[in-house]
Amino acid sequence: MTSTVVPGGHGRAVRVKSGQTVRVVNTHGTQVVDFWAIRADRPEIAMSMQHSRIPWRNLRPHPGDGMLDEERSTIMILTEDTSPGVHDTVIAACDPFRYAQLGAAPDHRSCCGNFTEALAELGVARKAAVPAPLNLFMNIPWDSEGNIEFLPTVSAAGDSVTFQAEVDLIVIASACPMDIVPINGPGGGKPVDVELIVE
Amino acid sequence: MTSTVVPGGHGRAVRVKSGQTVRVVNTHGTQVVDFWAIRADRPEIAMSMQHSRIPWRNLRPHPGDGMLDEERSTIMILTEDTSPGVHDTVIAACDPFRYAQLGAAPDHRSCCGNFTEALAELGVARKAAVPAPLNLFMNIPWDSEGNIEFLPTVSAAGDSVTFQAEVDLIVIASACPMDIVPINGPGGGKPVDVELIVE
Repeated sequence: MTSTVVPGGHGRAVRVKSGQTVRVVNTHGTQVVDFWAIRADRPEIAMSMQHSRIPWRNLRPHPGDGMLDEERSTIMILTEDTSPGVHDTVIAACDPFRYAQLGAAPDHRSCCGNFTEALAELGVARKAAVPAPLNLFMNIPWDSEGNIEFLPTVSAAGDSVTFQAEVDLIVIASACPMDIVPINGPGGGKPVDVELIVE
Repeated sequence: MTSTVVPGGHGRAVRVKSGQTVRVVNTHGTQVVDFWAIRADRPEIAMSMQHSRIPWRNLRPHPGDGMLDEERSTIMILTEDTSPGVHDTVIAACDPFRYAQLGAAPDHRSCCGNFTEALAELGVARKAAVPAPLNLFMNIPWDSEGNIEFLPTVSAAGDSVTFQAEVDLIVIASACPMDIVPINGPGGGKPVDVELIVE
């Protein structure tokens, strides 16, 4: 078992072998985690929300659901979710363009920056654009008309989501640095640490 | 004014200058149209559903909504929609992997294939993956639990959606070749032609 703390506002990448599990722990309960997986053998091929929704038949994944890559192979299974299951798959990861529009400082950290930085720290080069993320614990409810809202997390401290790898993977997690739009937890939105457990 | 017929199951790409409009006409009412836009000056940068939903605050675009690219610039405005407004933004374009899983012949046409073929016919080379499409007229309803269904179109013959370009663009439309999952209209799902009008 290896544990990796992802500091608030930062990202980390870890290797997960086929058959291993990776657990994303929302240590404080208030943190949105932008989460990606790419194939270890071909890092250009990523987990894809737009492909995964087809077998899910849902806007969100639930325990037992497979996570598909861009070639529609099942690369992970969501095996356990101790949170209320409120995750988002329809909103892009934050990036410098987003923070510029929100009036933040030019050096504001972002999930896209964290993705690239975390892979570089692992020595992985990747040319393709940052994939559409699975935004764990992110609370973007919809209504019957399709209207969506950006609301704080509803998860509790220690809630976790566990995936089992079906192929060798690299997973990347960003403890979202967003501190302007109030998605990061009730009462402030200060980015805090989360944990990745591989076993 | 230029009119381009997109044959059923095939794709076409057309250039749309800043200030011009492109109208996508569902000639027979039954056809799903996978629709993309890329910047003429930088074809690697595409219209993006995951970024556009943020200003839309909705799962679907409505008249007046801007279509954002992957750098969050507004590259088109949806100016008119004479259809019931039932479009999809959450499902990937069909591709050879999809048809293999559905048991179709290896040479079954696909929207991803049509995207690449149409750009090649226009002499445009692009390295990035086929972007997540705006699936015009595609009927993928959701419920309060996030469950989605694949249903036939609800549009009428002659329904159209019009976009005004904010920058010089190349737009690509595929008259979706899907003839297995019943999304292409009531009563059969035979791919039929649609029309692109630029003026």
